[in-house]
This record gives sequence, structure tokens and C-alpha cells, in this order.
Amino acid sequence: MSELISTPTSALSEPLLLLDEARAQRNLERMVARAAAAGVRLRPHFKTHQSHAVGRWFRAAGCQAITVSSLAMAEYFAADGWSDITLAFPFHRGMRDRVQALAQRSSFAITLADPAALGGVHFDNPIELWLKIDVGSHRTGFEPDDLPALRELVAALGQREHIRLRGLLAHAGHSYAARGPAAIARVQHDSLQTLTALRDALSQTAGPLALSIGDTPGCSTHDAFPGVEEIRPGNFIFNDLSQWQIGSCAIDDIAVAMACPVVARHPRRGQLVVHGGAVHFSKDAMDFDGQRVFGLAVAADGRGWSTLRPELRLVGLSQEHGIVQAPAEVIDTIRPGDTLLFLPVHSCLTADAMGGYQTLTGERLSMMARIGAP
Amino acid sequence: MSELISTPTSALSEPLLLLDEARAQRNLERMVARAAAAGVRLRPHFKTHQSHAVGRWFRAAGCQAITVSSLAMAEYFAADGWSDITLAFPFHRGMRDRVQALAQRSSFAITLADPAALGGVHFDNPIELWLKIDVGSHRTGFEPDDLPALRELVAALGQREHIRLRGLLAHAGHSYAARGPAAIARVQHDSLQTLTALRDALSQTAGPLALSIGDTPGCSTHDAFPGVEEIRPGNFIFNDLSQWQIGSCAIDDIAVAMACPVVARHPRRGQLVVHGGAVHFSKDAMDFDGQRVFGLAVAADGRGWSTLRPELRLVGLSQEHGIVQAPAEVIDTIRPGDTLLFLPVHSCLTADAMGGYQTLTGERLSMMARIGAP
Repeated sequence: MSELISTPTSALSEPLLLLDEARAQRNLERMVARAAAAGVRLRPHFKTHQSHAVGRWFRAAGCQAITVSSLAMAEYFAADGWSDITLAFPFHRGMRDRVQALAQRSSFAITLADPAALGGVHFDNPIELWLKIDVGSHRTGFEPDDLPALRELVAALGQREHIRLRGLLAHAGHSYAARGPAAIARVQHDSLQTLTALRDALSQTAGPLALSIGDTPGCSTHDAFPGVEEIRPGNFIFNDLSQWQIGSCAIDDIAVAMACPVVARHPRRGQLVVHGGAVHFSKDAMDFDGQRVFGLAVAADGRGWSTLRPELRLVGLSQEHGIVQAPAEVIDTIRPGDTLLFLPVHSCLTADAMGGYQTLTGERLSMMARIGAP
Repeated sequence: MSELISTPTSALSEPLLLLDEARAQRNLERMVARAAAAGVRLRPHFKTHQSHAVGRWFRAAGCQAITVSSLAMAEYFAADGWSDITLAFPFHRGMRDRVQALAQRSSFAITLADPAALGGVHFDNPIELWLKIDVGSHRTGFEPDDLPALRELVAALGQREHIRLRGLLAHAGHSYAARGPAAIARVQHDSLQTLTALRDALSQTAGPLALSIGDTPGCSTHDAFPGVEEIRPGNFIFNDLSQWQIGSCAIDDIAVAMACPVVARHPRRGQLVVHGGAVHFSKDAMDFDGQRVFGLAVAADGRGWSTLRPELRLVGLSQEHGIVQAPAEVIDTIRPGDTLLFLPVHSCLTADAMGGYQTLTGERLSMMARIGAP
């Protein structure tokens, strides 16, 4: 299929996730330059794009090490030649055989978030290990004030065959509640202070420990990461309305947009219906201008898109339908079969729901299969 | 992979969507019997399972006609021999070529929700057409009180080559806001009254019109569908916590459960973390006992599951992580790598997110690919 944005003579038959490669490459170059200037390794998180093709853009930009969030993702990227992979999701014993297999072909690191997760597990070859530290998001990870338990754990890890403790890994996910650079900076500052203090407190037991941090808001808005060895942002390659609302990107930095055919107009209630539902966007929503929205429209511009059209809001999603609130004068100009473009609230989940991209030059980029696919 | 529910010696490496075939077959038999007793055609909606294998269970039970919600789904099931397909999603001109191709190999019906959607469209072979009527959900469809416009549309359709108007199609989606049989019955009663009156009012212009209705709550709880030719429920094959909350199924009728490895314990805040996030469950939530939940646990029972464990609640989802609220005495008994089973809030979206099933006898069932997959 080589369909692109609707013209009077050609219309989309179904939703299409458009990827503006130029915007994505610019996001990538900017982050590569930022990491280089700060003297930290960029170990990008590939959970956002889940695509060999996009991964190769990172390789061309000089990245050699990556982060993933599942074994299936690790295996998918290992199959494309990535040989330095960190699984930034808590290890448990059920992962053992697949981790072992991955570690036989690449430098592979796991993440520990529970002291009992390694119980009964033995590896036959070297595995790197990061301790997941909860710097305030309270999703998971060791609580940094529990120093006696952490010292005990670190000492025990030192005795384990084939396990090499690399350092402390954190994801300051609470930066997603921040709004604006000052608020993001406070999260970043507090996280680094917590991590640095903990590293110093553990260094007597553990020897030198590296620090690895990861959220896109913090990594997109800072020029220096004192004491940090590597950063692991992922979302920045595409960005989305959430990042824009936080203040970590501009609208023009959002590199994916969903092209949705209009299927019905309901002028009496100020709504359009598009093909574009929960199985395309996912159901992540955000508050915008007093409303819960699942996407905001952008103006189509030749083969791509330009400015925000905040008056066209995706306000409801069922499995295949999207409900768009629109002013009457806009509805008047639209016919079924026309295409509207929407920026997603959360590009990672939108990409995962769609399973592939089309670039603005018409190239189809595939993604890894869903884990249930045989 | 032949992994099933965790035992002391084998643990899951990643989430797995379990399908209890016995429960699904029982749901299917019950609906087939209900439709037969009521003298209506069962044209099940296949958007819930999206699987050739599950579709064949319907065929074995005597179903010959199906409903789908996208062209991709129509093509997927046509490829498995289904030859009487209704696309219960609004038609627009971008669909024309694929509809034409489908209609050449099967009896194919489209749905019209906007009078302008057929503008400029010509078909070369016979297409059936349903008018989508908004019976109160206000998602899309023609408003039944707009009789002059509907008469005009019906007259115009009568002049069109290759289009055969079949009747009025509705989805009383507002039944999902009902709680209990009496509330569901009110929605059903009002919908049927609206449809019957509209059919009578249009019959002078249109000739005989069939009625097709579709929601699982209404279809699961009624024994008679006066004046209706066919019913199109879909979700009933699996059911889910939403249907249970509405009152259209029992917990024991829910035929899918997600098996999730526990990855970390946080007893201080009464939480467990499981592998099972938005890319597995989707982000549909419901209110339960004053909380927003994404799933509720069930007790593992041999190779399947039994009763609800409402004290174990999935209260947060990020991409891969699920946050489970659990009592301290339960957390004490659990270790990383153990498996917990959760009933989903919305089985259609959960199945779509996972991309496949594993039956309790260890068989893997595949689903159609995501639309973005090349």
C-alpha cells in the first residue's frame, strides 16, 4: 500500500501511523549531541519505536548500546545485531533461560528490583546487573533510605558467580507530573542527589558503581548530568502530546501522527467520527483545556503536517471509532473519506497498538510482533 | 512455548493470555440456543476474538454469517472461508476498492452513517447496505427523529445501481452504562421501539426493512427480540469484568485471563508489581469498590482458574508494569516469578493488545496481524 494523506482523488482505507523521519532524525541528533556534550553514554530505550528500521537510525548516529523493556524486545533487537542490551524491567526467575541465551550472544544486563528475585537462579555465563532504585515515582525499585538492606544485598551479590553489579539504575517517572523546565529540573536534581548519596554510601561494600537514569523529560531539558554514566531516554525519538504538555518538546518535535479517515459528521452535536479508536491510539488520555483528550489534530501540509489545530480534539475512543469535537464551520468543510491527522497523547502505546509506520516518503517500517503472536 | 501457570519448577517468562475453551464454548452454545429459541439469526461480531481458530468454533456451532469492524478483519476472515460478512463500521469512499474486492468473493454488507459517504462511489457488483441508526448511544448513526431526511436518503438509495438496502442496524452501546437486568431491559425495549417505529415509517418508501441489533448486554439477558431479524453480539464469547459489572455474565462465564509474573513486592505500601501493562491489558479501566481498576485477580486452579480474588486489584498500568494492590498477608506468601491471574476489564482490547491466546490445554491460537504490520 502506498497510500498517503487524502487528496480529492485518493483516500485512505484505514488509519495509518505516519512517521516524519526528518523530525525523528532531528530529535535523535539533538539527543546524541546533548549526551556527547555532557560526556554520558546514550543508551536509548527502544520500547518507543520497537522497530529494526528506526533502531538502525540510532546505530548510524553512533549508538552501540540500547535499553529494552521485555525479553521479546531484547531478542528482536539482538536479532538485528545489537550486542549491548540492558533489560530495564525487573528480573524474575521465569526469565532465567531467555536471559542466559541472550547473554551468550551479547553483553546483557538485567535489573533487580526485589532481593528475592535471584533466589534459586544460577547463570552459566556472565550477566551484568543493575539495582533499580526508586527515586520517587514509587512504581518499583529499592527504597534508597533502606541502607542496611541494600548493603546486605550488595554484599550478597558480590558472592554470586557470573553476576557483575554495574550500578544503580533509576527512572524518575514522576517527571511526567512536572509542568515546565523548573519543575522537571527539581525532579532531576532530587533524583541525582538521591542516587549520588546512595552510591557513596554503598561504595565501601560494592566498589565503584555507575549511575544510569532514564526519563525523556529530564534528559531532553538538561545539558549536564553530574555523576551519571549513561542516560536511557526513549520517547524523545517521537515525542508526543504528553511530552509537549510537560514542556520537554515543542509541537514541531512530535514525529508521529495518525492519519484517520472521517466516517461521519454530526453537526448538531459538534462532532465528527473518524476511523481511529482504542486499537489504534491506545486509551491513554490527558487533560487539555479542561477536557480529557486522546489526541489533537494538526494541519496537513503537503505530504506531512505543520501546526496544531487545537479546535479539533479527539474526545472519545471505542474499539474502532474516534469521536472528534469540532467547530461547526470546520465540520461544514469536511466530507466522509477526508483524512484528519492527530498527534497522539502517548506515542509509545500508539506505535505498539498499530504495529508499524509509514514514512512521509511512503516507506513502510515494520515493528516487532505482539508477544502473543505465535 | 508450552508454559502454563507457574509451578515451583516452571515459571512464565512473560505475560500470557489464557483462553478457557470450555467456558468460551459454553458461552457460545448458550447464545446459539438463545438465538434459535428467539427465531433470530446470530451474526456474531468477530472483533472480540479476531482469530481464525475461535471463528471455527462458531462455524462448528452452526454460524454462517459474521460481523466485523474493519476491512482488515473482513479480509482476514474471508481468507478463512467466511462468505457472509457485514462490516458494522461506517463506510466512506476510501473503502471502496477493498469493499468491491470483498463483495466479489462473498456476500458483503456495508453500513452507512452519513448520507454523503456514498458520494462519487460506484460499485461494479452487488453490495448490501444497512443504515446505522443511533438508538441512544450517540456515538454515530442517523438520528431516528430526522424522518424527512431518512426518507429522502432511502429513496435515493433505491435509485442506486448495485446497492441493496437491507435494513436498519443499531448498536445500543449505552447499555454499557446499565447495571442489572431491569436497566438493560429498558435500553433494549426503548431501542426496539425506536427501530420498529422507524422501520414502519420508512417502509412505504423503502419496502421491507430488516432490523439488526448488537450489544452483548442486551443479547445476553433477553429471550425474545420482537421484530428483529438478526443479533450481532461479540463480547459474549469471552465476557469480561465490564460485562460482569453490567450484569450480563457471571464471573464464571469470563473465558480469558492474563497470567502475569510477579516481579517485585512492596509490602510497605501494600503493592506487588507484575509484568502486565498497557501493552498487554490495554488501558480500559472500571470503577470497582470505589477504586479505578484495570483487572481483578482470580484463584489459579490446576491448569485454569476458579473464583474471584477481589482483594488483589490491578490499580495502575504503565507500558510493561502492572501495580497490584494486595493485603500484607497475601504479599507475604508471594515471591518474584510466581504467577498471578487477572480477569480483564475489556476482553476485546486485551486480546487485541496481546495478539494471541494459549488454551488451557497448551494450544496457541493466533489472531489477525495489527493493521500497521506489513
